[in-house]
Amino acid sequence: MSTSGIKAGIVGGTGYTGVELLRLLATHPQVALSAITSRSEAGTAVADLFPNLRSHVDLRFSEPDSGALADCDVVFFATPNGIAMTMAEQLLTAGVRVIDLAADFRLKDPVEWADWYGMVHACPDLLGEAVYGLPEVNREDIAQAHLVANPGCYPTAVQLGFLPLIENGLIDTTHLIADAKSGVSGAGRKASVGTLLAEASESFKAYAVPGHRHLPEICQGLSAAAGGAVGLTFVPHLTPMIRGIHATLYARLTGETDLQALFETRYGREPFVDVLAAGSHPETRTVRGANTCRIAVHRPQGDETVVVLSVIDNLVKGAAGQAVQNMNIMFGLDETVGLDTIALVP
Amino acid sequence: MSTSGIKAGIVGGTGYTGVELLRLLATHPQVALSAITSRSEAGTAVADLFPNLRSHVDLRFSEPDSGALADCDVVFFATPNGIAMTMAEQLLTAGVRVIDLAADFRLKDPVEWADWYGMVHACPDLLGEAVYGLPEVNREDIAQAHLVANPGCYPTAVQLGFLPLIENGLIDTTHLIADAKSGVSGAGRKASVGTLLAEASESFKAYAVPGHRHLPEICQGLSAAAGGAVGLTFVPHLTPMIRGIHATLYARLTGETDLQALFETRYGREPFVDVLAAGSHPETRTVRGANTCRIAVHRPQGDETVVVLSVIDNLVKGAAGQAVQNMNIMFGLDETVGLDTIALVP
Amino acid sequence: MSTSGIKAGIVGGTGYTGVELLRLLATHPQVALSAITSRSEAGTAVADLFPNLRSHVDLRFSEPDSGALADCDVVFFATPNGIAMTMAEQLLTAGVRVIDLAADFRLKDPVEWADWYGMVHACPDLLGEAVYGLPEVNREDIAQAHLVANPGCYPTAVQLGFLPLIENGLIDTTHLIADAKSGVSGAGRKASVGTLLAEASESFKAYAVPGHRHLPEICQGLSAAAGGAVGLTFVPHLTPMIRGIHATLYARLTGETDLQALFETRYGREPFVDVLAAGSHPETRTVRGANTCRIAVHRPQGDETVVVLSVIDNLVKGAAGQAVQNMNIMFGLDETVGLDTIALVP
Amino acid sequence: MSTSGIKAGIVGGTGYTGVELLRLLATHPQVALSAITSRSEAGTAVADLFPNLRSHVDLRFSEPDSGALADCDVVFFATPNGIAMTMAEQLLTAGVRVIDLAADFRLKDPVEWADWYGMVHACPDLLGEAVYGLPEVNREDIAQAHLVANPGCYPTAVQLGFLPLIENGLIDTTHLIADAKSGVSGAGRKASVGTLLAEASESFKAYAVPGHRHLPEICQGLSAAAGGAVGLTFVPHLTPMIRGIHATLYARLTGETDLQALFETRYGREPFVDVLAAGSHPETRTVRGANTCRIAVHRPQGDETVVVLSVIDNLVKGAAGQAVQNMNIMFGLDETVGLDTIALVP
Repeated sequence: MSTSGIKAGIVGGTGYTGVELLRLLATHPQVALSAITSRSEAGTAVADLFPNLRSHVDLRFSEPDSGALADCDVVFFATPNGIAMTMAEQLLTAGVRVIDLAADFRLKDPVEWADWYGMVHACPDLLGEAVYGLPEVNREDIAQAHLVANPGCYPTAVQLGFLPLIENGLIDTTHLIADAKSGVSGAGRKASVGTLLAEASESFKAYAVPGHRHLPEICQGLSAAAGGAVGLTFVPHLTPMIRGIHATLYARLTGETDLQALFETRYGREPFVDVLAAGSHPETRTVRGANTCRIAVHRPQGDETVVVLSVIDNLVKGAAGQAVQNMNIMFGLDETVGLDTIALVP
Repeated sequence: MSTSGIKAGIVGGTGYTGVELLRLLATHPQVALSAITSRSEAGTAVADLFPNLRSHVDLRFSEPDSGALADCDVVFFATPNGIAMTMAEQLLTAGVRVIDLAADFRLKDPVEWADWYGMVHACPDLLGEAVYGLPEVNREDIAQAHLVANPGCYPTAVQLGFLPLIENGLIDTTHLIADAKSGVSGAGRKASVGTLLAEASESFKAYAVPGHRHLPEICQGLSAAAGGAVGLTFVPHLTPMIRGIHATLYARLTGETDLQALFETRYGREPFVDVLAAGSHPETRTVRGANTCRIAVHRPQGDETVVVLSVIDNLVKGAAGQAVQNMNIMFGLDETVGLDTIALVP
Repeated sequence: MSTSGIKAGIVGGTGYTGVELLRLLATHPQVALSAITSRSEAGTAVADLFPNLRSHVDLRFSEPDSGALADCDVVFFATPNGIAMTMAEQLLTAGVRVIDLAADFRLKDPVEWADWYGMVHACPDLLGEAVYGLPEVNREDIAQAHLVANPGCYPTAVQLGFLPLIENGLIDTTHLIADAKSGVSGAGRKASVGTLLAEASESFKAYAVPGHRHLPEICQGLSAAAGGAVGLTFVPHLTPMIRGIHATLYARLTGETDLQALFETRYGREPFVDVLAAGSHPETRTVRGANTCRIAVHRPQGDETVVVLSVIDNLVKGAAGQAVQNMNIMFGLDETVGLDTIALVP
Repeated sequence: MSTSGIKAGIVGGTGYTGVELLRLLATHPQVALSAITSRSEAGTAVADLFPNLRSHVDLRFSEPDSGALADCDVVFFATPNGIAMTMAEQLLTAGVRVIDLAADFRLKDPVEWADWYGMVHACPDLLGEAVYGLPEVNREDIAQAHLVANPGCYPTAVQLGFLPLIENGLIDTTHLIADAKSGVSGAGRKASVGTLLAEASESFKAYAVPGHRHLPEICQGLSAAAGGAVGLTFVPHLTPMIRGIHATLYARLTGETDLQALFETRYGREPFVDVLAAGSHPETRTVRGANTCRIAVHRPQGDETVVVLSVIDNLVKGAAGQAVQNMNIMFGLDETVGLDTIALVP
């Protein structure tokens, strides 16, 4: 770990996105982990909470004291929603780049944000400055950004799947359907009956069908691509596994095109989007631990409904990996540095 | 077990639908299990292959000798596709009722059957006589039937979810979407790399997106309800659990209605279809081992897309339980006899 | 459900042993469920908390008001440790039989109890009266008992495995080893990080190696059988599954015997202990949902170490099923009534 | 990948140890993968069989043609037992180092090998030359070796747990007990009913209690450490997870010692053995994907039985990772190069 590397801090590193950031940053050749804060675990060695990090991370959790954080080059917020918006301004003023893995800066409209997140936004002035950190869309803006809103897990998988179709005006965007399935780590590392192994294993269910917070985020991104409002039905499901999101996307084609070529062209230069051969079915396990989004596009029975299958690891390309990718871009590094984990199979 | 009960035989009882039939029939108060055949396991005690049946089932597998089967009142085929069609006629002639849990008699059109199943149908003459065994649609015909085609697992969950909407002309039937998720027992009890725990656990994938054999079966049923051809995109997925199907159904509403009342009315007298309260999300585990289909209906964000969530145990309401339900109807018993298993939770 | 049946009440029915009791009692032909209490869920319909019970259980949770409970013939405590001991006396005085599924009455010595459970025993006077509810040992006493201490899950599996050897003086009882593995439902239905699917799935660990509360309970039972103190090393492990305990027991043989015949003779008349053929390996899934203990005995390589494999469903023979078995005995019913669930396989 | 690096070949790379070797070697900075053979998959791109390797491995499987292999610096055998012994001699003659991940060269006695593996050994002459590749015991010999027998998964976990006690003469070695639990990937990537998700999930069982092939291998290693024959009862179990071995070891102490200090001293300089603090319980997930063995030592209740808990990833420290570690030693590299994967948690 180069002493001249990027000094990185993490706020709230006791959850799953936090430990995943630690895993990625600990072996990142250009990063020096300098602070990780947690009010509840202050004083505890990180490796005592996460023994997989023994011999890799020597830090202890510290109080979220902005003194230590202000000394960083970049600070990641791996906190619950509503924390980053109270601390970001001070850090930005101190010249620190901020990457928020929570939702505080994802929506441009503070009223809509308040509606979905149930609290008033603490710093609406920063919403305009924040860049939505989906590199496949905003790479250039990210490179200039001081404040990046790292996308949600579902929004990453869904947007990457729909974008080639929408950007090229090939589908009816008034009735999009995103049927998404997530492993339970998406619910976070907090005590809860519903995600106990004894409750969530050997079962499958939809949840939040009336409305999920990722709906407006996805709509915002797809509308930008469509150049106008889109209509989306988004149904998330809980799958009995730890990691992985599988988004199955449906839309009606409004024109003829070579779907396979469309996707291959759109993502041909993207290091972390892998378009599978025609007829393929991506498995979430092939991206477990990796920052890759694997996509396949189908047109079943030759009908006018196109089906896109898009898989990511919700904690990597859907959270910590994408955050590191954004950091690489923000600091002018090769975008793939520190992100070469090969998925564990089996 | 009454000696004056229904004498039941099972052909091909070494797979998952077979052992599930055994579980249900062994405790059915009106049934005497009299024969179970398996060419590969002839001579083996059933309880040696399935130790959960120790002290409950004393039979040994026998050669599929139609002598013993012809002596039964009812014979269940829990065989691969293509077996029942070669044996049914002889049994029917001998006065035996036949319930086929495989696909041989599900499609009315032998040409379509041959296209999807890759073999010529051995007894197309019986297709007209066979009754499709979905009691919630065909109860009266089943009561008179000698040959019942037990529905597929996906078709049961999907049809029960769409029927109230289609029967009442409330949705656009040209663009139906059924996104279905199944546990791996649906793939059967046969050695296969793809369904090894080390392959299928901790992963999620779609499969057979270009075309699955249950597609024409579902379309046949929904078209009958619609009074005309329907258009369906059907995408099955493999979920890392043993039992359970969750079908998430999407359609555009073409008229206004009280969706909750519609479903409650349609299924109010059905013993095995349970409509949940508005806003609910059924979990597959609540039907594990039970013959119940649990359904919830949603209209997210008040938009015109209706979402139906329908869950069954693929081996019970999706196979063996429905077969017993059909037998009960065929023999004039209370439809629920022997089907009172409460799902194991947790 | 006969109105003249046994009126049963449950205190604390919101946990896993509670819902399992409900599953078993709801279909028990001689039992009328008359009250189920829960302070936290008072007023909630039981079937709203446990949708698998919809149409099977119509009760609502009520406040733990001893008026309603005092009207029962039998009251089951499916509570945390320390509750039954504060309520039992009043119920017993009212003529109610009490079966405690928690640990309050399992140890005879109140000082030892206080050491392991961290609280003073509230009614040590009842400890002498309480009968330890392991029917395979205490059937006659249970039949006369008013207060039954239902055994722990590990103690059931371990004692049933060791008893034939110890009762016949065939092993060195100073160095017994019980290596036990449990599914996570043993930890109960309470919010906890350690048993989240994302934490406990795809992992295996030992816990409580320095000392587990079931250790003194097992030692008490084995010492009684041995006619003197025994030495036991007991190591429990957490296994990534919902239900099931597998105890692997090790002891040194001190004499020659036909081990297979020993076990078959000991348990030949026991309805819920199933000794497998020599050379077998019981699987926990074969007892999932069933009240059976399956046992196999081995002598690897002909050496002097005997290995016993003993499996139960921790929530059935290890808790609710054994409680119903005890109730059947206490009320003079056939011991197996209501306990004929066949394990779900697969 | 340096063109001047070690040219590595893999024979039989279609199984789980093969894909794991590929994962590790593909990112190893000193290795150039030059050949991977598989008779059944010759011509197939490796990444088509294992999509997690897309963009990481460009090779195709080739026929096991010793011409290509003979051009390598090192050849790994990730084959079934009995293959390496027919090919090793030719490769060694050609100057290639050979590391066999199967069992062909693990036992020194060809008669014992034939007894356990059911075939005559094809090259008993090489058994003396082969070095048993447990670096924590044989590091110096491995550095000089041309032929390394990579240890089995169970033997690695069990030996590392027992060694400090045996080497110091602290336990009675006549009655050792190793109760070991493995994830199902240990059974390999081959079609099999017993390891289907629908069979092996939600269940736990022992297997091969009468005798497992790893028994003589463990005894050979422990006897060498003890300076005389040891007595071991070894019981393997199948756990419903993909990766991981947890060995729970029992022995009687024959002398007093500071167990914690003993283990910490023995492994203080070992890069891949991590002794946890006193009172700890290692979890297999903390080594998932990592080459680490985590160990904790206990003396429950202060009795004379010592309990050692030892966990590894069966495919890494128990197979491919240890093979790479051996390769590093054989070629004079830093032993840890290419082996810095941090375990995925959660």
